[in-house]
Amino acid sequence: MSVVVVGSVAFDDISSPSGSRKGILGGAATYFSLAASYFTQVRVVAVVGDDFTADHENVFKKRGVDTRGIERAAGKTFRWGGSYSDNLNEAKTNFTDLNVFEKFHPCIPKEYEDSEFLFLANIQPTLQAKVRRAMNGVRLTGCDTMNYWITSTPQELAETLKLVSVLLINDTETKMLAQESNLPRAAQKVLAMGPQALVIKHGEYGATIFFREGAFGVGRHPFRAPTLPLDEVKDPTGAGDSFAGGFMGYVASQPELNREVLKRALFYGGVMGSFAVENFGTERLQSLTREEIDARFQIFCELTHLE
Amino acid sequence: MSVVVVGSVAFDDISSPSGSRKGILGGAATYFSLAASYFTQVRVVAVVGDDFTADHENVFKKRGVDTRGIERAAGKTFRWGGSYSDNLNEAKTNFTDLNVFEKFHPCIPKEYEDSEFLFLANIQPTLQAKVRRAMNGVRLTGCDTMNYWITSTPQELAETLKLVSVLLINDTETKMLAQESNLPRAAQKVLAMGPQALVIKHGEYGATIFFREGAFGVGRHPFRAPTLPLDEVKDPTGAGDSFAGGFMGYVASQPELNREVLKRALFYGGVMGSFAVENFGTERLQSLTREEIDARFQIFCELTHLE
Repeated sequence: MSVVVVGSVAFDDISSPSGSRKGILGGAATYFSLAASYFTQVRVVAVVGDDFTADHENVFKKRGVDTRGIERAAGKTFRWGGSYSDNLNEAKTNFTDLNVFEKFHPCIPKEYEDSEFLFLANIQPTLQAKVRRAMNGVRLTGCDTMNYWITSTPQELAETLKLVSVLLINDTETKMLAQESNLPRAAQKVLAMGPQALVIKHGEYGATIFFREGAFGVGRHPFRAPTLPLDEVKDPTGAGDSFAGGFMGYVASQPELNREVLKRALFYGGVMGSFAVENFGTERLQSLTREEIDARFQIFCELTHLE
Repeated sequence: MSVVVVGSVAFDDISSPSGSRKGILGGAATYFSLAASYFTQVRVVAVVGDDFTADHENVFKKRGVDTRGIERAAGKTFRWGGSYSDNLNEAKTNFTDLNVFEKFHPCIPKEYEDSEFLFLANIQPTLQAKVRRAMNGVRLTGCDTMNYWITSTPQELAETLKLVSVLLINDTETKMLAQESNLPRAAQKVLAMGPQALVIKHGEYGATIFFREGAFGVGRHPFRAPTLPLDEVKDPTGAGDSFAGGFMGYVASQPELNREVLKRALFYGGVMGSFAVENFGTERLQSLTREEIDARFQIFCELTHLE
């Protein structure tokens, strides 16, 4: 089954303790598409400028991603510059040039309308809601957001949250959204806003999924997946979007939709996030094999499972 | 098999968002003893003052802890005051009155000498080394330390680390000790200093155990145990010592000493830490049952194990 992703395609300038790159292909929709492409058919909705070449598009096409939803607009593609110091969990933004992304009005191609899964990457919440309503037949909608929307458009975000199945955000965003410093209590408050499940990404500590009572079957507890402790994180950019790609891609590849599937998806999310950060930009995500992915999934099990 | 713990017994003044308590029984050796007592025979070595009453000693005795190693000195028992705000991971120290603890020269009673397990709670590294040498027959020595010793007595600490089997410290201490910001690389550097295994406690995110190659059997990877996301943490004091108590207590209760035992011990460490913080001081640790502990161990498995 296919998954539609709506979000940014960008060119990034990145520097980290491992080096630097200029103008490399990035953006939430790009990381998500590549990560999810190892599990299922991916269809992308984004906007790019004149500087987006056939070579750039081929990065998607080589992974079988449907690019008919990538709109070409006059002007430049979204550009972002960020640097990481020793604390790789936090990027310092050097510049953000929205360019054609500023007037992004996502439009779902007719051919995408039979998709059963949808991922709303981090864009303005009203646009997310519009896309969600346009794809009314989907079985499951995943959604990301960020501090900026939580503080500047809380009502619009509240409307969007009523329409999504799984929200994927980090610890800080969860506490901010719930206005509650205790994480499990914050999770309950966020679930009361609409989503059936909440995935909280803890960076190097993995992720936890909290379920609304009765959602996706029964069960008393949240579930936690690890990440692989990596000797070198070259570029943390896109880790969260790659996580979402692994998570949603795995879910879309399964016939059933239940807690056990979502738990395994949480592991696959961590796996794809851990690959993404091993090299700059999307380099590692372009060249993986399903065998490598499943071998790492196995390592994640060994990391946490008692005999 | 029995475990000897050497460390502080204290009276604490604690305030947290959940309330406050004055002069309650605390100290690393106390938390450790109570937590470990649910698994094995515990023998404590500590020093207290005139203000340590029979009622205080009974807290240990009720749990079957051997208190013959608690030395009575003239003066007051160690007192510590700390407060926690919304960030429960960090205590603000309001006062530290070492009192009789300042001149603590741990002396192992003859009757303790056949113990096969030893835990060196957070005290001056030279004293730790002295105790370790006095207990030369032990099978496994666990050890804690803190920022203060890492920065002020690095050489003494380096000597101690050569004598211990498992070091249990947190993320910040690991990075500080290794002078390395990447956690897995820091872990390798710490293992090169002596310990066969390193347990890194991540607070609300659980703990990871790293093994020196070939130590305790074979295996390629570290292992991670979760903690239970708790709706209310009343008092985080002693969580790390209770973790160590659960870890060492479980290890001492097992006939074999291998990686699988240490992995399960990591789960039991998390279990005891999660109980400790549910109420002020040692209150929760005084009244547990082994059934409650094993039920929570089961929850920890459900939290992380795929079917």
